Amino acid sequence: MAMDQPLPVDDVTRVRREPHRQVTDRAALHAILDEALMAHVAVVRDGLPLVLPFAVARDGDTLLLHGSSGAGGLRLGAGGPVCVSVTHVDGLVFARTTFESSMRYRSAVVHGIAEVVPDDDKEHALEVLSDHLFAGRTAEVRRPSRKELAATLVLRLPLDSASVKVAAGPLEVDPEDVEPREVWAGIVPMALTAGEPVAGPDVPDDVAVPGSVVRTRQRFSG
Amino acid sequence: MAMDQPLPVDDVTRVRREPHRQVTDRAALHAILDEALMAHVAVVRDGLPLVLPFAVARDGDTLLLHGSSGAGGLRLGAGGPVCVSVTHVDGLVFARTTFESSMRYRSAVVHGIAEVVPDDDKEHALEVLSDHLFAGRTAEVRRPSRKELAATLVLRLPLDSASVKVAAGPLEVDPEDVEPREVWAGIVPMALTAGEPVAGPDVPDDVAVPGSVVRTRQRFSG
Repeated sequence: MAMDQPLPVDDVTRVRREPHRQVTDRAALHAILDEALMAHVAVVRDGLPLVLPFAVARDGDTLLLHGSSGAGGLRLGAGGPVCVSVTHVDGLVFARTTFESSMRYRSAVVHGIAEVVPDDDKEHALEVLSDHLFAGRTAEVRRPSRKELAATLVLRLPLDSASVKVAAGPLEVDPEDVEPREVWAGIVPMALTAGEPVAGPDVPDDVAVPGSVVRTRQRFSG
Repeated sequence: MAMDQPLPVDDVTRVRREPHRQVTDRAALHAILDEALMAHVAVVRDGLPLVLPFAVARDGDTLLLHGSSGAGGLRLGAGGPVCVSVTHVDGLVFARTTFESSMRYRSAVVHGIAEVVPDDDKEHALEVLSDHLFAGRTAEVRRPSRKELAATLVLRLPLDSASVKVAAGPLEVDPEDVEPREVWAGIVPMALTAGEPVAGPDVPDDVAVPGSVVRTRQRFSG
């Protein structure tokens, strides 16, 4: 799907609540997904909804979902309909009333049929996932073994049907608002941030923190 | 449900992948929910899975989901089966192989039938939500009007059927591991953190940041 084509708005993807916040720009969808470490993946199991978190990475026009070949929720999504939600909380909006209090956030919801990444593409998919989640880690460690590849399940989902909803910007003040001005109102920004790395117990003292960790800290610097 | 009764482990709630990480202590469930601002709520719509983010708060043995009386995903959950997932990413685990790389996280998944909070209980539910999300904000602002209450939809879900899964602790080093020790391995802690509050454009200079904002910054101090 070409980047200059807007995301489709239809019965599946239309934002019902606060429709003015819907964004149809594919670049906005990609930016939200590229900031995510995990996504919440919903399937229908025995007629009931089930939603579980999975590690994710975008690979071009598809979203990769990482799991295990063993038991687990991801297997349920293979070959069937899934819905994937990624949400970033960007701020808490302290309005002058409970009713107007809200959040700043960016939300992406993707709908589609997930398929198992075939064996020939699995190592590439794992590289994309690892370099996304761990900021270029594959250059620092060995390649996965055949056994490790066999024990890993990756699903991919096309990014054809997706809703993006964004609540951004400064506090909106209603000029008709009669609430007293002596009540503070404003926004507390929120962000997922990285702390100080903690080396494993067997790492020699002279081994420096690698580039992947430095980049992760830059990426999540708050 | 008494706090000293463990969470049930059955076909719905059993953790399939890494079952040793399943926790059945209700206090662990409550702690995960009490740290959450948003949850991902899944329903079945026209036979397909749909998952959307909603603001949440725990009220005793129930989970409150906040929405609007108008159009929107929350109405779909009213009276029907829902699945609610809350996940906190606590760290990125940089192992010496791609395969062993993982995350530290705490996950809660709640299953059940969501019901609409009746009018008589709605103001209480909104107070619980507001005081949870905005750290005691209701003491600083006026009560909601009838019109505001009518425009708000709150669902509640009993916390009877839930899975908790926790990946915590320091890096595990396999003594059989033959990967070279000169490859750094360790954990980068992650946390949702609050930044500097930004006052709205019409807040007089002499209005101090209120207790709710101070507490929010303490709560999310990384």
